[in-house]
Amino acid sequence: MQPADPLYAQRLRDSFERQAVMKTLGAELASVQPGKVCITMWHRPELTQQHGFLHAGIVSTALDSACGYAAYSLMPEEAAVLTIEFKVNLLSPARGPWFCCEAEVLKPGRTISVVEGRVWGAAAPDDQANRKLVASMSATVMTVLGRDGLKY
Amino acid sequence: MQPADPLYAQRLRDSFERQAVMKTLGAELASVQPGKVCITMWHRPELTQQHGFLHAGIVSTALDSACGYAAYSLMPEEAAVLTIEFKVNLLSPARGPWFCCEAEVLKPGRTISVVEGRVWGAAAPDDQANRKLVASMSATVMTVLGRDGLKY
Amino acid sequence: MQPADPLYAQRLRDSFERQAVMKTLGAELASVQPGKVCITMWHRPELTQQHGFLHAGIVSTALDSACGYAAYSLMPEEAAVLTIEFKVNLLSPARGPWFCCEAEVLKPGRTISVVEGRVWGAAAPDDQANRKLVASMSATVMTVLGRDGLKY
Amino acid sequence: MQPADPLYAQRLRDSFERQAVMKTLGAELASVQPGKVCITMWHRPELTQQHGFLHAGIVSTALDSACGYAAYSLMPEEAAVLTIEFKVNLLSPARGPWFCCEAEVLKPGRTISVVEGRVWGAAAPDDQANRKLVASMSATVMTVLGRDGLKY
Repeated sequence: MQPADPLYAQRLRDSFERQAVMKTLGAELASVQPGKVCITMWHRPELTQQHGFLHAGIVSTALDSACGYAAYSLMPEEAAVLTIEFKVNLLSPARGPWFCCEAEVLKPGRTISVVEGRVWGAAAPDDQANRKLVASMSATVMTVLGRDGLKY
Repeated sequence: MQPADPLYAQRLRDSFERQAVMKTLGAELASVQPGKVCITMWHRPELTQQHGFLHAGIVSTALDSACGYAAYSLMPEEAAVLTIEFKVNLLSPARGPWFCCEAEVLKPGRTISVVEGRVWGAAAPDDQANRKLVASMSATVMTVLGRDGLKY
Repeated sequence: MQPADPLYAQRLRDSFERQAVMKTLGAELASVQPGKVCITMWHRPELTQQHGFLHAGIVSTALDSACGYAAYSLMPEEAAVLTIEFKVNLLSPARGPWFCCEAEVLKPGRTISVVEGRVWGAAAPDDQANRKLVASMSATVMTVLGRDGLKY
Repeated sequence: MQPADPLYAQRLRDSFERQAVMKTLGAELASVQPGKVCITMWHRPELTQQHGFLHAGIVSTALDSACGYAAYSLMPEEAAVLTIEFKVNLLSPARGPWFCCEAEVLKPGRTISVVEGRVWGAAAPDDQANRKLVASMSATVMTVLGRDGLKY
């Protein structure tokens, strides 16, 4: 896919830095490509549900950011990105301790883009062979331009 | 709706206490009824996205807990609760500063329950008149019994 | 809710008439109000799945039309309506034999509207007391104006 | 993926034959593999919405069957299959005139399976190069055994 803004990667990284919740999660922007983003994070005790796994909503927080930024990477410079909705399937306990949230644009659009995401859990960042699918997401993301963009 | 366990409210509150992420969010279990739960929280700068609103995933975290516990309130004593999937529509910016996450079981089931949730934003906890709809959720929740429950 | 077009009901009925699939389903537009639509239909053997119930997709077809038209009722005269996505929970077998698909706009918007729908099954049209919840839907619907509308 | 029943393909084809709605759609079971199913169909005027495209619900009907049968292919002989919920994103007008609905199990489970599906439109069955993505689905499917299975 072709980015509308050649400087999309820096613009995306700047926006990610402004998402204060990513620091609270300890989430990092691991890679950025046109239409494709990866966010990684580690298990943290203060982000867990009653069984000690990462809360489904926290998994969704990182994955929603990955989906939103995957769409954002294809948007024009002046655009703001807005998630309209997402659905997440929780496939196995978010044990981790390392998580990789991959998102890729399925259908880019001028106004509406659809993005798919997956969260993988692994014992360590380089343990690709033993990674386990934790969650999948489909998200609808909107490109907001002009005056409407000021709201976001 | 009729709870299977007469002591459901205490069981539910104990489980909520064990969700460490609820403390990180500053979320409180405001009310518990059979099939119906309300969780409240305040806007916190460390939970925001790039425009200063509560991140959609954080809104979903509180709302998913509300949905899960609404179903849990109707489950037998020995059951564990597991969210299979949820879908959330983001309806307006999560400005708050106060949020009320209401969940109610639409269809209880022995194995599968379907729960609906809404997040309202308001200037203050008692400002019901001016509250604004922030998000809606539909969640599929599973009752996990016996050996399977040990996993969760 | 306030319709943008005072003649919304006729416009909506005309569009419904052009949905050839509604005839195939034997579906009827039972009621139209601003932001609220009801479509009814009977069980038909040629619309069933392997157990003799109405296929989940057929239930979704009628309910998606109800959701789309609920949003359409609030749109300006020149608008076309487009479903972006919907999620449906199947709550009990679609035995019927009579079905009532109710949709109501949860959040109207200039571009994006969110609509909620429910399908009820009953033994007969006037048997409100014994009706049973068959399915629930949340749909995201887009208002398409101008040149883009010609595509739809 | 490994089928639990070596005769899964015949069992699946028999069940498909009993879905009367598939005949109404003119849908055919094009291919069956463990965890993977393809259903094809042609555009039919009696299945259209107001703009002459296949109705989103009809697209969903074929795709839901593909998703359900993809999960069913991995189930034991005595099991019945039940869709709990699905979400569909409509990505482009269902112009066709030929449609290919592909479904693949993302996460098989003893009780709950998650399946992903895509609908492609093309000018002709062998026109893979120019096919266009029409819709995507994620579905949660349940394995129903024993007495519960008699309901379905």
